[in-house]
Amino acid sequence: MSEDNRTELSDLGEFGLIDLIKKKVQIRNASTIKGIGDDAAVLKYDSDSHTVISTDLLVEGVHFDLSYVPLKHLGYKAVMVNISDIIAMNAVPRQITVSLSLSNRFSLEAVEEIYDGINLACELYKVDLIGGDTTSSISGLTISVTAIGEAKEEKLVYRNGVKESNLLVVSGDLGGAYMGLQILEREKQIYEESPNVQPDLSDCDYILERQLKPEARLDIIREFETLGVKPNAMMDISDGLSSEVIHLCKQSGVGVSIYEEKLPIDQQTFDRARDHHLDPTMCALNGGEDYELVFAIDLGDYEKIKNHPMFTIIGHFVVESDGYNLTAKDGTTHPLEAQGWNALKD
Amino acid sequence: MSEDNRTELSDLGEFGLIDLIKKKVQIRNASTIKGIGDDAAVLKYDSDSHTVISTDLLVEGVHFDLSYVPLKHLGYKAVMVNISDIIAMNAVPRQITVSLSLSNRFSLEAVEEIYDGINLACELYKVDLIGGDTTSSISGLTISVTAIGEAKEEKLVYRNGVKESNLLVVSGDLGGAYMGLQILEREKQIYEESPNVQPDLSDCDYILERQLKPEARLDIIREFETLGVKPNAMMDISDGLSSEVIHLCKQSGVGVSIYEEKLPIDQQTFDRARDHHLDPTMCALNGGEDYELVFAIDLGDYEKIKNHPMFTIIGHFVVESDGYNLTAKDGTTHPLEAQGWNALKD
Repeated sequence: MSEDNRTELSDLGEFGLIDLIKKKVQIRNASTIKGIGDDAAVLKYDSDSHTVISTDLLVEGVHFDLSYVPLKHLGYKAVMVNISDIIAMNAVPRQITVSLSLSNRFSLEAVEEIYDGINLACELYKVDLIGGDTTSSISGLTISVTAIGEAKEEKLVYRNGVKESNLLVVSGDLGGAYMGLQILEREKQIYEESPNVQPDLSDCDYILERQLKPEARLDIIREFETLGVKPNAMMDISDGLSSEVIHLCKQSGVGVSIYEEKLPIDQQTFDRARDHHLDPTMCALNGGEDYELVFAIDLGDYEKIKNHPMFTIIGHFVVESDGYNLTAKDGTTHPLEAQGWNALKD
Repeated sequence: MSEDNRTELSDLGEFGLIDLIKKKVQIRNASTIKGIGDDAAVLKYDSDSHTVISTDLLVEGVHFDLSYVPLKHLGYKAVMVNISDIIAMNAVPRQITVSLSLSNRFSLEAVEEIYDGINLACELYKVDLIGGDTTSSISGLTISVTAIGEAKEEKLVYRNGVKESNLLVVSGDLGGAYMGLQILEREKQIYEESPNVQPDLSDCDYILERQLKPEARLDIIREFETLGVKPNAMMDISDGLSSEVIHLCKQSGVGVSIYEEKLPIDQQTFDRARDHHLDPTMCALNGGEDYELVFAIDLGDYEKIKNHPMFTIIGHFVVESDGYNLTAKDGTTHPLEAQGWNALKD
C-alpha cells in the first residue's frame, strides 16, 4: 500500500466508518431482522430453535503477526475461528458481530482489507455481519468476534456426552496449520537476518493455507445429516488434538486410547516436519489451529464412517480409570498430555 | 494489593481461570440453557420473542484510565455500557459474554476484581454470564462484552421511528458523568505534580458515581410498561445528547428543537462545571457516558410523562428542513452540533 492511498481513520470518524462497513454488508438469513445501524441487532429464529453463541478475541503479537499474515486473511480467519465453535455444537452459524481496536498505524485501507476478508467468509458461509464496535487503541490490533448460530434442540452436541466404547473420530488431517506457522516464523527470521534472500516456499502451499486461511467444517455437520450420524460429543480443534480430547474425556468422565498410526497427517505436513526436525506425531497431537472436528460416535455408526474420505477413526474411549493414552507405532503406550497452546503464557 | 497476594495468571493457566470464573457464575434466566464450559453457549427464548444483540470494546488508555478507575468498577461499567444498548431497544437484557485480554502486569487477583464487578452487575440486573475468552496481550487491558436480550416484536423500539411533532424526552439528568471525569482527570494531574496533596473530592460523590458506576436504565423501560407508553424511537446516551439526538433525526428524516432551559442538570454537575470554567449546558449536550435514555413520544402521551420525576421533556421534533437547533435561555437559536466523543481520535 503506498502512502498516497492512505486515509486516516480519524479523518473519516467512527460514523463514517460504520456507514462504509454497512454498505459492504449483505444480509442473507431470514433470522436477521435488523443488522448494523441501531443500538443492537435483532434476530428471530424458528420457534423450536435454540440460539448458540460463542466469542473469541484475537490479539496482535499473541494470536497473529502482521509481518506475515495479510490483513484480508486475518479477517477471514477471525470469522472461521468463531463459526467453528458454533459448528462444533452441531449448529449452523447465522450471524456475527465484529469489534476492532486499532492504533493510528492502521489506515482506512487496512480496515477495508480486514473487512474484505470478513465479508468473504460471510459470503461463503452465508453468515450475516450484524454489528460491532470500532475504536482506537494505544498500540496494536485486537479483533473480537461473537458468532451466533441456530440448531434444533435434538441436534445439539455438547462436550459431555461421550460413552465408554465410543469411537474417537477426526475430520480432515492434523498438524498442518502448526507446520505452516513454523514455515512462516522461519521465513520471518531469515528475512530479518538477510532481507535479500528469497523465501523458499516450494511445496508449502497446503500447510500455509491451513495456517493462513483455515476453513470451518460446516460441510462436516451437513455430512452428518446425510449420513444420519449424530455424535455423542464434539469439539473443534483449536488448541490441539490432545488438549481437546482430554476435555471431552474430563467432561464425560471417560478415558481414551489413541493410535499413533491412525493419526491423519498430510504428506506435506509430514515432510516439512521432518525438515524442521520435528516429530510429525507431536505436530498432529499438539499443533492446534487446524479447526477440524473431533467427536465421539456410537459403535453402531462404525459402518457409516469407516471408509468415508472426510473422516478418520483414531481411537476409542475407555473407562475413566484407564486414563488418556497414546499407543505408539511400536506398540508402546504413553500418557496423553494436553500441551496445547496456553493463551495466558507470558 | 500486596505482592504477597499476587498469583500469576500464567501459573493458573487458561482452563484454571475458566474454572474459577465458572464457579462464581450463577444462572438466573430460564432462557439460558447452557452457559460457560462448551464450545458455545445455548439460549432458548419464548417462541414469539426476538433476540437482541449488542457489543462494545473497552480499551485501556482510550476508554478508561486505571490510575483512577478501580477494576471492580470497570467490570461493572463494562456490563452497564452493553446492557444499556439492549435496554435502548426496549428489550430486557438476559445474557452477556465477556472477553478479556491482559498483559502480564495483571494478576489473578486483578482479574477476580474485574469479575467481582461483572458479577455484581449480573446479579443486580438478573443477567447471566454465559461465555467469553481470556487471553494475554502485549500491553494493557481490553474488555469486549456482547449483551443479548429479549423482546416481543411489538415492543421493540428502533432509532428510525420519530414522527414530526413528537416530543423529545430524556430520563435522569445529563452531564454528570462528564463532570466526574473532569474531577478525576484533575485529581490525577494534581497527584502527579504533588503526590502529598490530599484530593479535594467534597461535594463530588454524585458525579463521581455517574462516571465510575453508571446504571443502565432498566427501570425506565419497566416504567414504560406501567405507564402504557411506547416510544417511537429511542437511544441510550453514550456519546452525548446532541450526537444521539442527531442520530435519531437522521435515521427518521426529521429535525429537532431543544430548549436549553429544559435540560436536566444536577446541582452538583452545575456547580462543579462552573468551578472548572465549563458551560453546564455544553456538558449536558456533549458530555456523554450518562447512559440515560433519550426518546421520542407521541403528543398524546404528554400527560403521562409531563410531571413524572423520571423524565424531562426537553424539546420537540420538527420537519427535516428546519434542521437541528438549540434555543438558548436568552431566546437565540443555535445549530446543534454532534461534538460527541470520537472513538477513532488519535
